[in-house]
Amino acid sequence: MASAEPPKEPTQEQTGEGDGPSKSALKKAAKQAEKEKKAAEKAAKQKELDQQKAANEVDYAAEFYGPLPLNQSQSRPHRVRDQVAILSERAGQPVLIRARIQTSRAQGNKMVFLNLRQRTDSVQALLVVTPEKVSKQMVKWAASLADESIVLIEGVAEKTQEPIKSATVSDVEVHVSKIYLIATVDGRLPFSVEDANRPETEAEGVQYNRVLLETRLNNRVVDLRTQTNQAVFTLQSAVGDLFREHLNKLGFIEIHSPKLQGAATESGASVFKVSYFKGNAYLAQSPQLAKQMAIAADFERVYEIGPVFRAEDSNTHRHMTEFIGLDLEMAFEEHYHEVMETIDTMLKYIFTGLRDKYKKEIETVQKQFPAEDFKWREGPEGTLVLSFREAVDILVEDGVPREDLDDFSTENEKRLGRLIKAKYDTDYYIIDKFPMALRPFYTMPDPEDPTLSNSYDFFMRGEEILSGAQRIHDAKLLSEKMMSKGVDPETMKPYVDAFRMGCAPHAGGGIGLERVLMLFLKLNNIRRASLFPRDPKRLEP
Amino acid sequence: MASAEPPKEPTQEQTGEGDGPSKSALKKAAKQAEKEKKAAEKAAKQKELDQQKAANEVDYAAEFYGPLPLNQSQSRPHRVRDQVAILSERAGQPVLIRARIQTSRAQGNKMVFLNLRQRTDSVQALLVVTPEKVSKQMVKWAASLADESIVLIEGVAEKTQEPIKSATVSDVEVHVSKIYLIATVDGRLPFSVEDANRPETEAEGVQYNRVLLETRLNNRVVDLRTQTNQAVFTLQSAVGDLFREHLNKLGFIEIHSPKLQGAATESGASVFKVSYFKGNAYLAQSPQLAKQMAIAADFERVYEIGPVFRAEDSNTHRHMTEFIGLDLEMAFEEHYHEVMETIDTMLKYIFTGLRDKYKKEIETVQKQFPAEDFKWREGPEGTLVLSFREAVDILVEDGVPREDLDDFSTENEKRLGRLIKAKYDTDYYIIDKFPMALRPFYTMPDPEDPTLSNSYDFFMRGEEILSGAQRIHDAKLLSEKMMSKGVDPETMKPYVDAFRMGCAPHAGGGIGLERVLMLFLKLNNIRRASLFPRDPKRLEP
Repeated sequence: MASAEPPKEPTQEQTGEGDGPSKSALKKAAKQAEKEKKAAEKAAKQKELDQQKAANEVDYAAEFYGPLPLNQSQSRPHRVRDQVAILSERAGQPVLIRARIQTSRAQGNKMVFLNLRQRTDSVQALLVVTPEKVSKQMVKWAASLADESIVLIEGVAEKTQEPIKSATVSDVEVHVSKIYLIATVDGRLPFSVEDANRPETEAEGVQYNRVLLETRLNNRVVDLRTQTNQAVFTLQSAVGDLFREHLNKLGFIEIHSPKLQGAATESGASVFKVSYFKGNAYLAQSPQLAKQMAIAADFERVYEIGPVFRAEDSNTHRHMTEFIGLDLEMAFEEHYHEVMETIDTMLKYIFTGLRDKYKKEIETVQKQFPAEDFKWREGPEGTLVLSFREAVDILVEDGVPREDLDDFSTENEKRLGRLIKAKYDTDYYIIDKFPMALRPFYTMPDPEDPTLSNSYDFFMRGEEILSGAQRIHDAKLLSEKMMSKGVDPETMKPYVDAFRMGCAPHAGGGIGLERVLMLFLKLNNIRRASLFPRDPKRLEP
Repeated sequence: MASAEPPKEPTQEQTGEGDGPSKSALKKAAKQAEKEKKAAEKAAKQKELDQQKAANEVDYAAEFYGPLPLNQSQSRPHRVRDQVAILSERAGQPVLIRARIQTSRAQGNKMVFLNLRQRTDSVQALLVVTPEKVSKQMVKWAASLADESIVLIEGVAEKTQEPIKSATVSDVEVHVSKIYLIATVDGRLPFSVEDANRPETEAEGVQYNRVLLETRLNNRVVDLRTQTNQAVFTLQSAVGDLFREHLNKLGFIEIHSPKLQGAATESGASVFKVSYFKGNAYLAQSPQLAKQMAIAADFERVYEIGPVFRAEDSNTHRHMTEFIGLDLEMAFEEHYHEVMETIDTMLKYIFTGLRDKYKKEIETVQKQFPAEDFKWREGPEGTLVLSFREAVDILVEDGVPREDLDDFSTENEKRLGRLIKAKYDTDYYIIDKFPMALRPFYTMPDPEDPTLSNSYDFFMRGEEILSGAQRIHDAKLLSEKMMSKGVDPETMKPYVDAFRMGCAPHAGGGIGLERVLMLFLKLNNIRRASLFPRDPKRLEP
């Protein structure tokens, strides 16, 4: 019973250090022992009486609580369940809810408060002993349910006197008349979902029960239940939807290219090898070759959303061995900037869509990961586009030695992001015209300056999210460039042959889905933007 | 020049078998030789004169034709290109078109007809020598362009007197005034796109230049250019769109689960092994485990479109080692039929969407693959649902021995499809309540008969396209079932643990995208529904 006090440790009187017990002390102890014995006997008798009483007492609520049969699927009364998110609209009405018990708190043995959670929403529910309706046994049973149990609750949504701060629905609470257990927790939770949802920054000053990323990822199923993560993955799904929605309107079609490849392409070093019957296959590092071949096959405008694999042994905040690529490729008419602008418009469509349609989810994430709203230029001046040379000049002006800037280090990339934010007030920009030496063999050189290329990177908050370029669509020039970069065209024959069969000029790019999500929300580690992240040290869960 | 006759083989007069030449015959021969010599001299002189004349003749059309610079991206006049599909609406107007030359046909040296193709559409274009506009040199150059070259054409869309049968746009043709080469073909085409697009059945009676599937797949980039394939992959993209569109409306979110797994799960035999740094990983056979874990993580309704990998050494018409799974998983409230019905409604949404919005593409495919339209029940009686037992009875009634029907062979599956089509006039149906023995360990048993399970398969034209079930959401029962099927629960600890942390009852299914497409269109081989198919013998292109 909730009212039963925990048995107290019997206190022993002090008797002088190192001495044996005195006579009076022994007498006192004997008296004390007898007293305790009597008390224990009394307690046992009382317990027996209580049990008898409980047994005799008819549980008038016996049908109103208890576990549901495991199997389910036995009857189908077609009763509609209510969503916690819209309970405010149901004030005064009966409700039926399936939800998790995030926490429960008993008050005496006649009342229990439950914090019920459904994805990003929560509401307070309470059971109060009520003759003929809610029995003591029922309250006791409800109070005994483990946190994270799933229950089916019937009751009435009642307006509250004061706002309930511990729930997202603050103006109603559910007065429970029936409660059934759908699924229980078997064993100890690795951490409470409440703790896992606490703001990250609060951990700095005050002593919070902060849950480390490693612990979260080891117990990802529980971690994913936080309101933050429910919002993060709704937003991940939204990014894909907005990407497709915009490109579909422009006449793109979705393709699915094989991840199993006959040869280790693009760059042999970072490719995973697969045992393929009696031979080997390799996992595609990107759909680069396939999507270009789709252009040679006249599909004109294609995109793909799928896994890409990188066998790079790096454990940074922004690398994973498997991530989701949002890839696109497009034949153009006059200039590769047509494609660069299409990508730009598409990304702005995603940013705008997230901000306008997913306000609630963004705010939910910001509670745990406070961040300035992501900023991009929306006016007629358009997105900031700098040439690689201009970007270098900005860094040089800020004191970076020009000789360090053949390529951007991660550090200089971020520095550039800060300088651009200060100067242009934008978290989003494009750098165009990268040196040819920095780009892969299939990149089209600049028509005037062969040391430059028709290629671009897109950045969010100082980190690269997309790399793209005009590609070489001519088999002869492609073969030359391959050989000059030490790649034997024979090892990629089907790819080179595709261009021999005639191919329109085209350009494209590949976006890392998790990077866009991480940087838009400022999650600080890419693993937080991946459902079950993979890195050189993690293959589970 | 097109007017030049090919040189004829000099004919030698018959001189009697085995005999040496007679005197008069020698004289005759000498005379003949002189005659020929004179003729040759005359022809050479004429040729020289022609060349001189051509050289002197100013090519007034020199700027109106020729190759474009390889690099493109040099200027950007922002001129809009016209789509062949809508040229009928442009009769009498100037047009600018980028298209492939499917075939060209010269008429004398003053005229050339081009069949221009853009994806599923084609139009006839012609160049006619016209003073100050189209020179003889220009016509000659245009006639010399290889089939499958990509050209940029300026001209006027003119109404035709009679419909042009060889093009999809039959009421206008383009009178060309400028023609530039964007990309050429380097080497011999493996087959002509025209041949590759011929109806499959015509090959049976008449001698057609039929292109074998193997040849097509070896040269997939050219094969994919056929109007049929342009339509097939537009329809493939549409299936994915309709799947997502419908499920998004029902509150599903899209997830992306890792393809790299730490253990060989589900069924060890058909899993590909990957070298993963110093250890091994395995390619996911399906997102089964991850999507169930997403339900344990409260996502409620999830779907995924992604590659699944099967290391099965079978080369049938409907198996590939890599294909695209349309997977979904959903928590339910009362009965697993909620999920079965959601899947049913979603599939009918796809069928209806294809029929109503992609009429043109379906008709294009049917020209090459004639088939009866796919039929499903649209009336209030709903989709045909048979229990496994009822399906067995139908086959037994048709003469199949009951003892052969512990499971359906591919042959019996197809026979059942024909029987159901005859009896119920539908190509689409569901079989429910499969024997437990036929299903994987994670399948929920039937609550009344433990030899049966809460599982279903969906069929199109007598072939399975989806397998699904209610899953066991209880860790103890799951561990028992694993052990009874010889799987050690310890090898799948993160999966089993997900259910220890409490999970709602749920069900789901996995659809093979290429199977849906193959069976809807009756393509007869699944490789035709895959952009770059993979099977035990094919890893390229």
